[in-house]
Amino acid sequence: MAALRVTVWNEGVHETTQPAIAAIYPEGIHGAIAEGLRDLLGEEVAVRTATLADPEHGLSEAVLAETDVLLWWGHIAHDQVADEVVERVREHVLGGMGLIVLHSGHFSKIFIRMLGTTCSLRWRNPEGGERELVWNVNPTHPIAAGVEQPIVIEAQEMYGEFFDIPTPDDLVFISSFTGGEVFRSGVTFTRGRGKIFYFSPGDQEYPVYFHPQVRRVLANGVQWAAPVAGARVAPAVSNPQPI
Amino acid sequence: MAALRVTVWNEGVHETTQPAIAAIYPEGIHGAIAEGLRDLLGEEVAVRTATLADPEHGLSEAVLAETDVLLWWGHIAHDQVADEVVERVREHVLGGMGLIVLHSGHFSKIFIRMLGTTCSLRWRNPEGGERELVWNVNPTHPIAAGVEQPIVIEAQEMYGEFFDIPTPDDLVFISSFTGGEVFRSGVTFTRGRGKIFYFSPGDQEYPVYFHPQVRRVLANGVQWAAPVAGARVAPAVSNPQPI
Amino acid sequence: MAALRVTVWNEGVHETTQPAIAAIYPEGIHGAIAEGLRDLLGEEVAVRTATLADPEHGLSEAVLAETDVLLWWGHIAHDQVADEVVERVREHVLGGMGLIVLHSGHFSKIFIRMLGTTCSLRWRNPEGGERELVWNVNPTHPIAAGVEQPIVIEAQEMYGEFFDIPTPDDLVFISSFTGGEVFRSGVTFTRGRGKIFYFSPGDQEYPVYFHPQVRRVLANGVQWAAPVAGARVAPAVSNPQPI
Amino acid sequence: MAALRVTVWNEGVHETTQPAIAAIYPEGIHGAIAEGLRDLLGEEVAVRTATLADPEHGLSEAVLAETDVLLWWGHIAHDQVADEVVERVREHVLGGMGLIVLHSGHFSKIFIRMLGTTCSLRWRNPEGGERELVWNVNPTHPIAAGVEQPIVIEAQEMYGEFFDIPTPDDLVFISSFTGGEVFRSGVTFTRGRGKIFYFSPGDQEYPVYFHPQVRRVLANGVQWAAPVAGARVAPAVSNPQPI
Repeated sequence: MAALRVTVWNEGVHETTQPAIAAIYPEGIHGAIAEGLRDLLGEEVAVRTATLADPEHGLSEAVLAETDVLLWWGHIAHDQVADEVVERVREHVLGGMGLIVLHSGHFSKIFIRMLGTTCSLRWRNPEGGERELVWNVNPTHPIAAGVEQPIVIEAQEMYGEFFDIPTPDDLVFISSFTGGEVFRSGVTFTRGRGKIFYFSPGDQEYPVYFHPQVRRVLANGVQWAAPVAGARVAPAVSNPQPI
Repeated sequence: MAALRVTVWNEGVHETTQPAIAAIYPEGIHGAIAEGLRDLLGEEVAVRTATLADPEHGLSEAVLAETDVLLWWGHIAHDQVADEVVERVREHVLGGMGLIVLHSGHFSKIFIRMLGTTCSLRWRNPEGGERELVWNVNPTHPIAAGVEQPIVIEAQEMYGEFFDIPTPDDLVFISSFTGGEVFRSGVTFTRGRGKIFYFSPGDQEYPVYFHPQVRRVLANGVQWAAPVAGARVAPAVSNPQPI
Repeated sequence: MAALRVTVWNEGVHETTQPAIAAIYPEGIHGAIAEGLRDLLGEEVAVRTATLADPEHGLSEAVLAETDVLLWWGHIAHDQVADEVVERVREHVLGGMGLIVLHSGHFSKIFIRMLGTTCSLRWRNPEGGERELVWNVNPTHPIAAGVEQPIVIEAQEMYGEFFDIPTPDDLVFISSFTGGEVFRSGVTFTRGRGKIFYFSPGDQEYPVYFHPQVRRVLANGVQWAAPVAGARVAPAVSNPQPI
Repeated sequence: MAALRVTVWNEGVHETTQPAIAAIYPEGIHGAIAEGLRDLLGEEVAVRTATLADPEHGLSEAVLAETDVLLWWGHIAHDQVADEVVERVREHVLGGMGLIVLHSGHFSKIFIRMLGTTCSLRWRNPEGGERELVWNVNPTHPIAAGVEQPIVIEAQEMYGEFFDIPTPDDLVFISSFTGGEVFRSGVTFTRGRGKIFYFSPGDQEYPVYFHPQVRRVLANGVQWAAPVAGARVAPAVSNPQPI
């Protein structure tokens, strides 16, 4: 079987402007995520990365047309992502490209555009973070395959409910935090012919993308989000013809 | 209990430009819908109407703030609806206002904006229409309360699958047509604090909005879509604060 | 509108055999629940109670035929509930009677019979209990209407995931506990023409059924679970005829 | 990767007692289904068959423990299936074994036991059958991968709504029939750690299990229903311990 073509997108601003964060992610957040996918999936994937600073943010029509699954990490530069690129990504998702949105990507233009809601949530980031426990509530789900119960993340930013998203297709993980908040931290959606997975663990201040269990979830997510046979079609956002 | 405040919106173009359609809907499509709601719900509702030609399309901030449930019918003038009004409606839906989208409203800006998909479908409108049978697949649902199984609509435009919408929260009705197509014709969604009901039966060329069973469904839909106690909040589309 | 006819069922064993628990619930757990419903819903409900010790456990064909919504609390005497009564309740639920299953009722014969799974969960009951926070994740849901975010219950037994239930129709509440566990504590299902609501807060050792917010949830639940117009039919468990 | 271990179960009564049906399915319905799986999946599967007449109906503890996915076809002999075997199958499904229930298996003991409802439906079988069109309403679903839109089955028994099942996790296919009825003909459920797929096309009087598109759906279904890594556990139906 041909390798899954994966593109890991990261705004890449924290790592290039804040030395403390560059120390945590010397290859960038995208580099850490890409490394995890390559380690776990080997020849099953061909992984490339792209960032905000690249021409067209590294997400040209050609790149998207050759991407089976796109991962998205953004935080402080959501507004700098060109609307044209957002619309291009949306068309490819509707046409069948998988999309995995990570952590603070809940406020990315592409996530809000696909879901239609505010995607707002409750949050808090005390010095040193809080312990997050990630509980699997759907043991039949491919995204949870082989994952420990619970995943223990010693230090994380708190994300809590109410998380303003549409009812997910599948609820896979629910997290708790030291303060007693809960969060639907692993949820899936379908939009058009594309699958979307949102996974909240992972922050620029904590080395979460090196956590073996988090890496396992992302590797599972990539395999789950890839289009099934026959599903991928050319982008068509407002096509009144039968599809 | 105070009456539910309902606004029936209709682009109102067919009836004012095509005599054959004005003959079917002499008070406009909005007039027929409003009449049905008043007949069935009496003092439980206070119904007003609004059209594209009204200032701000009849959907000013003041009107929306006093609307519990908005019904939306549009077809040939989707593009003429101001983006600003669409965004205003979206904010009120996210804040808790109910929204009922009818028939060709599947291609309205507001529906596509709320759902994120293309909302395209398969369609055909032969001379004289086709028989539509509307089957209730969820007898516990308030929207189906007291409705015949199936609803028989002698003449309708055909709408068929694949209907490009997100997975609905509730699937209430599935229709079949003479040609053998099927369609998820009654589906619900939640977005933010608001409820959305899409119901496909109802076309400008056929007197569907005078059908007693269709009127019952719309009356049920209005009651279902009204915000529950405490749900309605001021509009806030991109609010990063905890809500 | 006629009053909703509610039957609160409780095995009633703890209160009649353990003085410490009788001191918490002097009128029985059923008495506390019935009182809360009467206080909040007044003339909208006609509430009766029934217990294991009553003839036919107080759940004769006549009683069930006159019950719109049945609440169920059981814990140490699940096995003493007659299979015949369980089957009778099941038939009425499938015919449209609402069912609200409470706390340790997750292991009742009726709950397991309706859902088909083991309904097992993770649990712990340390001396003095743990703090439970009950978070609303669905602000549009009638069961959550007017309920505080979160509900704070100072002392409770811990129930945690994985909770072995089918995917709920609606997920309304998620709880966290002092130990960091999470639990889908408010979930709904439909079975046949009947609606089912499971709500976990409420234990014999803690005065949870006097908590104003818990009482509000149960009152909302009763209104939600009542059959919609036309839904209730005579019991028919294995009827091969069209229904 | 090791081959998926598939067991195709068929009551096998029609073919052994009715020559007209034996002529359609000379190797039995189970034989036709097994042949289709072997043709499409090759070395990815190891397929065996079992029938009612076998000792323990061919479903001993040893067979089930070595089965990843069980397919079930029954019609006129549901009552002859031993309760003990039904319970054994249920335990394995809850422990992670996949289950695919076919056509008239909607009234099998195992299906009713897993779902909790009556599983009744509307049906009609006129001389020569009716045309069934099977529409894919979920193009992202693995079970629909590579399947034509719609599947056309020239002659079939009619199954129609209301189909008394719980709300499915995923709705994949909706069928229409010549008479205008609709039916949720491809639906999935999860129960415990196991996945269930119900697919209605396929009757003893029509050669549906030789239809290439139906065979494709069943092959996809087997791959979908197989347990994910780590999901399969020893059977435990009423285990109060944390799982």
